[in-house]
Amino acid sequence: MNTKIKIAIVGYGNIGKFALDAVQEADDCELVGVVRRNTNSIPEELQHIKVTDDITTLGHVDVALLCSPTRAISEIAKSILSLGINTVDSFDVHSEIVALKTELDSVAKKHDSVAIVSAGWDPGSDSIIRTLLLAMAPKGVTYTNFGPGMSMGHSVVAKGIDGVKEALSMTIPVGTGIHRRMVYVELETGADFNKIEKAIKEDSYFSSNETHVIAVDCVDSLKDVGHGVNIAHKGVSGKTHNQLFEYSMRINNPALTSQFMVSAARASMKQQAGAYTVIEIPPVSFLAGDLNSLITKLV
Amino acid sequence: MNTKIKIAIVGYGNIGKFALDAVQEADDCELVGVVRRNTNSIPEELQHIKVTDDITTLGHVDVALLCSPTRAISEIAKSILSLGINTVDSFDVHSEIVALKTELDSVAKKHDSVAIVSAGWDPGSDSIIRTLLLAMAPKGVTYTNFGPGMSMGHSVVAKGIDGVKEALSMTIPVGTGIHRRMVYVELETGADFNKIEKAIKEDSYFSSNETHVIAVDCVDSLKDVGHGVNIAHKGVSGKTHNQLFEYSMRINNPALTSQFMVSAARASMKQQAGAYTVIEIPPVSFLAGDLNSLITKLV
Repeated sequence: MNTKIKIAIVGYGNIGKFALDAVQEADDCELVGVVRRNTNSIPEELQHIKVTDDITTLGHVDVALLCSPTRAISEIAKSILSLGINTVDSFDVHSEIVALKTELDSVAKKHDSVAIVSAGWDPGSDSIIRTLLLAMAPKGVTYTNFGPGMSMGHSVVAKGIDGVKEALSMTIPVGTGIHRRMVYVELETGADFNKIEKAIKEDSYFSSNETHVIAVDCVDSLKDVGHGVNIAHKGVSGKTHNQLFEYSMRINNPALTSQFMVSAARASMKQQAGAYTVIEIPPVSFLAGDLNSLITKLV
Repeated sequence: MNTKIKIAIVGYGNIGKFALDAVQEADDCELVGVVRRNTNSIPEELQHIKVTDDITTLGHVDVALLCSPTRAISEIAKSILSLGINTVDSFDVHSEIVALKTELDSVAKKHDSVAIVSAGWDPGSDSIIRTLLLAMAPKGVTYTNFGPGMSMGHSVVAKGIDGVKEALSMTIPVGTGIHRRMVYVELETGADFNKIEKAIKEDSYFSSNETHVIAVDCVDSLKDVGHGVNIAHKGVSGKTHNQLFEYSMRINNPALTSQFMVSAARASMKQQAGAYTVIEIPPVSFLAGDLNSLITKLV
């Protein structure tokens, strides 16, 4: 039997739109519908797709890709896992991943479903790289350098400051895991730039980094979702020092996030009930195809 | 209970010597002995270690690191797996990995042991990178570029040619997965260089690559076990093209191989009976330590 994995996209923002592409391109997956609050104004590309505000109206769903904001993930995941549907998210608050996983694990086990948490690129695919680097050279320092690229989280915080109409925060790597923030702000009429600059620099999101605030006429004209990472590890294998490793990528951010989520959706079908981070999943299970063919091609 | 993983090193050549370092440096592992044919002349560093030609004399062994030549792996692995002892090897003939795995899988399942095959760096850690790259951008070309570094296999073949006393074959990457071979040969007295050059270039190990043969006075003075790889992937995530990924390392070859084998030994303790390639193993199981601490640190 060669049935396709039935996937629902939950949330249709930046990530959800690219998730549509990734599901449509995956031969072993089938999109059963999009779940969003607004079911009235349907965008062009969803005209021939079921759009609903209730996932239970979609019939059988194997996996829900949770493309909602990080803060909403926990509640949405629990309600969907309770229906016996697997979930994949790209929850991105590093310090809260263990707590989220623990919470979802008990719900998933109770309802015979699988949750894969934080399956974007960082946390996500980068996490697998960092794990592998330690398996090769257990001692030594690993630096994760982000960017240059737009930080969604920092942009939202800057936009939240009084007098800021629109904001874009770029993350600039300056090496050894240290970052500079370049914050481009479009001001509301009459707003005081100096006051805004001070408020941004003092916010906990920015205060520990070198931060530059620049007023511009139009933030929208600066927006580009390209991003990147460079992970460098210099370490020790056995008793041998100076083992040098480097991983880097330059990518469209939401496209990579949603593609990796679709790969994780596939992997979720092969796990026992429970919640997992991506470092707990056999890498080959992210891929479609026959195991021995994949071994021949990749190992 | 916090018992250490009891490890035996089987074969004490280039890899075995570095495996000794890696086991000694792993806090959760304990070396129970070295298995080798020659038990008479014991090298300095093995004076306080049990050396035997029969693994059954070592008492309880959890995992045997098979540091013997690739051609001997199948027989040795089967006999050790039959004793209920896990095995880890760095078998390196890419085209025969599925066959080896299949063969060891049935023995391992019968005797409740675990075999992890081809757990060096290529095949090995590089295989995990290639798998991850496809999970992130399923379409596109991946190039694996080796070196510059000494190829053990090619050096042995060159040395086997009549009139060659000693040989070293360097692999030089020229991009897009194409390699040049620089073969340094030390000739026996009276040997005909032109004949040897021709024989090397016509051998199937060299005939498909640009190969240069150079006569030198002393091959030993050129030996350096440093090696490297550069894996480049340009591909498509969903419908988004031009996703760019690159992984590279510059490493001591036997040190990395044996370190990754020790990490795989650890992973073998957490698998069901059977044989596995490294892409079938959850990456985090290569590492020592508490799962939630590792997630906090790495994800």
